[in-house]
Amino acid sequence: MERRLERRDFIKRAALGAAGAATACGGGPDATVSMQAGSVVTGPEVSWRLVTSYPRSLDILNGSPEYVAERVAALTDGRFSIRVFPAGEIVPALQVMDAVQQGTVQAGFTADYYYVGKHPAFALSTGVPFGLDSRQHVAWHYEGGGLELVRSLFRDFGIIVFPCSLTGAQWGGWFRRPVESLSDLRGLRMRIPGIGGEIMLRLGVAVQVLAGGDIYPALERGVIDATEWVGPYDDEKLGFYSVAPNYYYPGWWEPGVTSSLQVSLNAWNELPEQYRQALASACREAAFITLARYDVQNPKALSRLIHEHGVQLHRFSDEILEAAWRESNEYLEEQAAANADFRRVYESWKAYRDEVFPFFAGNELAYASFAFPKIAG
Amino acid sequence: MERRLERRDFIKRAALGAAGAATACGGGPDATVSMQAGSVVTGPEVSWRLVTSYPRSLDILNGSPEYVAERVAALTDGRFSIRVFPAGEIVPALQVMDAVQQGTVQAGFTADYYYVGKHPAFALSTGVPFGLDSRQHVAWHYEGGGLELVRSLFRDFGIIVFPCSLTGAQWGGWFRRPVESLSDLRGLRMRIPGIGGEIMLRLGVAVQVLAGGDIYPALERGVIDATEWVGPYDDEKLGFYSVAPNYYYPGWWEPGVTSSLQVSLNAWNELPEQYRQALASACREAAFITLARYDVQNPKALSRLIHEHGVQLHRFSDEILEAAWRESNEYLEEQAAANADFRRVYESWKAYRDEVFPFFAGNELAYASFAFPKIAG
Repeated sequence: MERRLERRDFIKRAALGAAGAATACGGGPDATVSMQAGSVVTGPEVSWRLVTSYPRSLDILNGSPEYVAERVAALTDGRFSIRVFPAGEIVPALQVMDAVQQGTVQAGFTADYYYVGKHPAFALSTGVPFGLDSRQHVAWHYEGGGLELVRSLFRDFGIIVFPCSLTGAQWGGWFRRPVESLSDLRGLRMRIPGIGGEIMLRLGVAVQVLAGGDIYPALERGVIDATEWVGPYDDEKLGFYSVAPNYYYPGWWEPGVTSSLQVSLNAWNELPEQYRQALASACREAAFITLARYDVQNPKALSRLIHEHGVQLHRFSDEILEAAWRESNEYLEEQAAANADFRRVYESWKAYRDEVFPFFAGNELAYASFAFPKIAG
Repeated sequence: MERRLERRDFIKRAALGAAGAATACGGGPDATVSMQAGSVVTGPEVSWRLVTSYPRSLDILNGSPEYVAERVAALTDGRFSIRVFPAGEIVPALQVMDAVQQGTVQAGFTADYYYVGKHPAFALSTGVPFGLDSRQHVAWHYEGGGLELVRSLFRDFGIIVFPCSLTGAQWGGWFRRPVESLSDLRGLRMRIPGIGGEIMLRLGVAVQVLAGGDIYPALERGVIDATEWVGPYDDEKLGFYSVAPNYYYPGWWEPGVTSSLQVSLNAWNELPEQYRQALASACREAAFITLARYDVQNPKALSRLIHEHGVQLHRFSDEILEAAWRESNEYLEEQAAANADFRRVYESWKAYRDEVFPFFAGNELAYASFAFPKIAG
């Protein structure tokens, strides 16, 4: 409701904007009145184009840059405007960072780990297997030095990043038949990209990488046996449940995915300071609100999946989780040994993980494990 | 680090401010240059006083309104300034809401549940025993209709509230001797205010209410046997560990305390729209950042308490947790039966709790309970 009010206020203010701008520098007693009713920002009109890696149908995820645009407009009396283009409208989903680097657009909303080919340590900006949950990732980014380290890597690419979307723990994906043991995983054809795919490969999975729109047909035709995506609200839309109704958790390879606004440093440097502050605020707000939207919509979607679509929930077995834990940690250590930049970011990240996990294993976990199961699903 | 940069930028900008303001409406080519380098906001100078319920020593909690003030200044080119006064400097800790209602100050940072004497449903704005955790509380407030309901109650008091601080799950407190069973609780003299105290009373505890500064002397002199406060980082400063070294978790009566900025509606209505937007953004950012600060500092503090101060950690027994769960739910139902406003807010809150708890009991809890204990504390 608050968001709707803000949007309405913004439309009202935009209508007043022209009048306000005309009189703001006009002097005389009426000028002050106009300024209070209308615009108090007199900076230059700035218009940006922002491309995203996601289709419009992922409305919470793609809603993050839309929300950033709304907040920036509200904080600058509409003088700094950002137009959002979903995946494919200007550039393909996985070329967002290139478009920002090349100056095709001023900003992009994407996951930094899509670009590990440019730098392996970008993975740590988004999240890695058995990594920090969303709340812990925010703490490391903002108060544990993580964002500063990540930004030092992006500077060489002419980009400054702002975390602006949290999904919570993603889910373990959809399997045609139950997988109980490591031997069930061996040879299984699963769509899973990124580092999660790397770990699954080490567990014997025949890893496939397919774009979102190609997954369902591949499942239906029997080309793959399993796939992962995001979580109940997003997964429901792609209909995997009708072919692969065994839904696994936890999504140990993506326990707290953080997506970023990647901004061209050239464009950033041209902004008035107040517009920069507005953009920084808007991104922090968007991270906060995106997670809230998932946390309201995911429970409803999961309930529909179970009660209307006959989905079976399964927890991954300890055998699978233990093997994945070992392989994931080994993988990260290997990356750190191979790349000094990776090691520098990883050491900060790992130091925080090793402090915060045992802390959360106490109070927070004791509360969660007593209270949450008290209400039957 | 980002925060320090922002503060430095703000000082630099404040120094430029006078020059910027002088030329912003002067016309000619230089005016545009000055506007870009300096101030782009030409609204009225607004100065607010903000009182808090906390001493300066609680630097994360009291840091929330300080952060709000910094962000509001950054977002308005310093034209909207807020000066923060800790508890006792203008009004006593628990008279913050009165000071806002009476117009003594424009805003106050406090916990809405301190004022259940004015309206019992204010408790649900802050958090109740066995309630939502911090992440869930944000979701209910912003995307589940909770904040709208809470604001409808505060409107009658001439106030609009903005959630702006999250603590995570608070801790169960400090006990001179271990308490294992309900019989150990009976007759125990414990400092615990609010609804937590109400539930402890029902469990047979001799409940005491003492202000922060009076707790340690009462413990030391043997006037009380136990006390609760916030969590490791804040509790360490008060030194309870030296007298009552048994530290219990989880803090089931405060699993996700949310503090508020209470703003006088008269003052709010006088603000230019852009300043209102700045304040709303700043509060969402402050909630986000406060939790990150706790999540970085609490693990370090807990480690000091254990390794340097010999503190013994204990999980409350199932016997105590089960009895507290029953009493807490009964208490909330009684409140709902007795007050129609309480019922209206409670029904929204409970509907969300009953959806989100089983959801978190799946994926999120499965990840947490496998991964967090993997690292030894």
